[in-house]
Amino acid sequence: MRLSRYFLPVLKETPSEAQIVSHRYMLRAGMIKQQSAGIYSWLPLGFKVLKRIEQIVHEEQIRVGHIPLLMPTLQSADLWRESGRYDDYGQEMLRIKDRQGREMLYGPTNEEMVTDIFRSHVNSYKDLPLTLYQIQWKFRDEVRPRFGVMRGREFLMKDGYSFDIDRDAALHAYNRHMVSYLRSYERMGLTAIPMRAASGPIGGDNTHEFLVLASTGESEVFYDAAVTDLALGARDVDMDDRAAVQGICDEFTTLYARTDETHDAALFESAVPEDRRRVGRGIEVGQIFYFGTKYSEAMGANVVTADGSRVPVEMGSHGIGVSRLLGAIIEASHDDKGIIWPEGVTPFHVGIVNLKQGDASTDSACNALYSAVIGKGLEPLYDDRDERAGAKFATMDLIGLPWRITVGPRGLAAGKVELTCRRTGESEELSMEAVVDRLGQIYAGI
Amino acid sequence: MRLSRYFLPVLKETPSEAQIVSHRYMLRAGMIKQQSAGIYSWLPLGFKVLKRIEQIVHEEQIRVGHIPLLMPTLQSADLWRESGRYDDYGQEMLRIKDRQGREMLYGPTNEEMVTDIFRSHVNSYKDLPLTLYQIQWKFRDEVRPRFGVMRGREFLMKDGYSFDIDRDAALHAYNRHMVSYLRSYERMGLTAIPMRAASGPIGGDNTHEFLVLASTGESEVFYDAAVTDLALGARDVDMDDRAAVQGICDEFTTLYARTDETHDAALFESAVPEDRRRVGRGIEVGQIFYFGTKYSEAMGANVVTADGSRVPVEMGSHGIGVSRLLGAIIEASHDDKGIIWPEGVTPFHVGIVNLKQGDASTDSACNALYSAVIGKGLEPLYDDRDERAGAKFATMDLIGLPWRITVGPRGLAAGKVELTCRRTGESEELSMEAVVDRLGQIYAGI
Repeated sequence: MRLSRYFLPVLKETPSEAQIVSHRYMLRAGMIKQQSAGIYSWLPLGFKVLKRIEQIVHEEQIRVGHIPLLMPTLQSADLWRESGRYDDYGQEMLRIKDRQGREMLYGPTNEEMVTDIFRSHVNSYKDLPLTLYQIQWKFRDEVRPRFGVMRGREFLMKDGYSFDIDRDAALHAYNRHMVSYLRSYERMGLTAIPMRAASGPIGGDNTHEFLVLASTGESEVFYDAAVTDLALGARDVDMDDRAAVQGICDEFTTLYARTDETHDAALFESAVPEDRRRVGRGIEVGQIFYFGTKYSEAMGANVVTADGSRVPVEMGSHGIGVSRLLGAIIEASHDDKGIIWPEGVTPFHVGIVNLKQGDASTDSACNALYSAVIGKGLEPLYDDRDERAGAKFATMDLIGLPWRITVGPRGLAAGKVELTCRRTGESEELSMEAVVDRLGQIYAGI
Repeated sequence: MRLSRYFLPVLKETPSEAQIVSHRYMLRAGMIKQQSAGIYSWLPLGFKVLKRIEQIVHEEQIRVGHIPLLMPTLQSADLWRESGRYDDYGQEMLRIKDRQGREMLYGPTNEEMVTDIFRSHVNSYKDLPLTLYQIQWKFRDEVRPRFGVMRGREFLMKDGYSFDIDRDAALHAYNRHMVSYLRSYERMGLTAIPMRAASGPIGGDNTHEFLVLASTGESEVFYDAAVTDLALGARDVDMDDRAAVQGICDEFTTLYARTDETHDAALFESAVPEDRRRVGRGIEVGQIFYFGTKYSEAMGANVVTADGSRVPVEMGSHGIGVSRLLGAIIEASHDDKGIIWPEGVTPFHVGIVNLKQGDASTDSACNALYSAVIGKGLEPLYDDRDERAGAKFATMDLIGLPWRITVGPRGLAAGKVELTCRRTGESEELSMEAVVDRLGQIYAGI
């Protein structure tokens, strides 16, 4: 993309309404615009990052065999009366009447609807295991929406629902979600720690939240420092091998890591050596639940077992906060100049800065680089505006592209351009050919 | 995808509520499930086609330089009061009050919000031309939702908004949209004819609708038969060349083609030779509008011109009915056995039918084919269920994959499998290697 043809409305001043750094930078970098309290437009740069995150979530869900579908945003109140939640849910549910006076609501979550889909079409253990998921907009009418997309009212969420014949199979689905989530967050450049959580209004026995450590997090967290060294990495996992999947989950959940809701001070002191005890704050970016037959019993979602009996299907709900992840990633990865995108989610792979726009040889070198980067299957953002170098660097730093190529007459005279790493600030001089190869290598494993 | 692990709830009976063929087949093929009147879940197969269509729309918009963003589904009533449409819109607008009593609405279209984004960030002719678009869910509270996704209440639409400095530039944006739409529809296997349309409640001078000919269409259409022979094809167009783009638009809009709203019987008779006059029905799958300064004047979206004066920006709105396209494609492409997907939008590229599930050599051949097809970058659907051949063929015909490979012991003994074209019904025997190469060739240009 050439910046002269893009829509990147960068702000010079820090907006006064933004209390935390991710909200400030998302506004300043022209990623979002507030339309109403807790409701945002995703401007082009923000939309690109949102799509990258969505794509990672899709790829990792499909990799473990989960199946995407899409449910509507509006739901019938009658469906929620079946589970009893229509009356229980309170004011966070946005209730709507249509022109015929029918009671509707904007879905805050989808257990009822997906259970309705299941009971309409599945009758036999032969069709299990089954996990259906979607990435869809939700609405929760928060009384105090704040922190930009971190606590918005209209938000994008991945919500997945597992259906299994018995408790063991359901716990395997739970574990499968844990592994797929760990891999998703790692691909986004995040350390998200699974922490034992309280079940909350949805009910359920087994539940973990995934938290990204950040001083602006809404939850207080208590953990063993060793937990932050764990990484799934590139290991190949047979997701049908229950013991192997359980082994990974054990690896990530044995060390102490809890939110204030489930924290046990005595256990923390006895189980964690003093020098590894950490107290901090975390941002919740996902949660997995195994809740059994709460909805299937209430809504009559039964399956016939191998011996011919009918049992309510065992269920779990598993969510990733897709839109809030942008805020969480920025909270975890920025400096005083702006955002530092991890390579896995960056809106553009590299920025190209032309130091002397209008000069035939720098323009031509920039155009050649631009084409060569695209030829590697990467997306460059080429700042071809007639601006001074300082302004171009400030924009690139603010929007946080992980790599920048600087092209100027002096370097070109020596056959070189400069490649700069946003995170370290380190630069090196390379030939045009070498810089393109280098970018290809950097992104090869992403 | 292996069918044994997929969620494809095919129905044996024809649902009684479905009046038209696309609605019947979408229900029978397990593509959608109605959740409330005019509100549907997109089951996995339907969701896959929806994503393919969305992807084509994105690619063709980006190809002509339009920039994607995403606006929220819920909007503030105050924004619509600025344009005067909050009171004008009538009962099709779904009006909502949040917990604070603020008046909101579920966006039926986005002129007001995108104009608000524009006026907040753009001030100068130097930032033009600019076209922003999104693919987002809309809601219109139709009094009689019917025909499945063809006239739903919650529907997915691509809506794009062009901003230009003067009328000539705005008409070029209009033309650019026409060309990008023609290419989009052709990639979906559709002949969509641009027809001069009435402007309707949105206002505006220049407007064309794109109609797919189908006996179930809601509009009566009058056209010169020669118009159906026009095709954009693979020609390369410089979208910055106004004259070239205008030339294509002239080519597609000179022959007589109008809906009943703008039909001129006298002109039809004088301009079209009798043997080429056609009267039929059409499904509207898109519309482009140039409406000038209607919203920019009402909402104060002004830009400074090169000579320093301030003028309201020239605008247009351009839409594609993404979710309704699934219905339109099926109406245009089916037979009495089921859907026939064009290659450009098919949910899976090829079906693999194992005639003797459980037999070691057919199972192993199917597995090898399955991997080889994936190796070509294509998505196969492998029917690995323990079902008789007739049931497997019926399912493949119903869901409409354009190509099917049949693998049985007799063919394998001669080193052959069978490749069948869904549209023609023609089959040929090929080696396993040749069939994979053949599929690669078929999809190379898609």
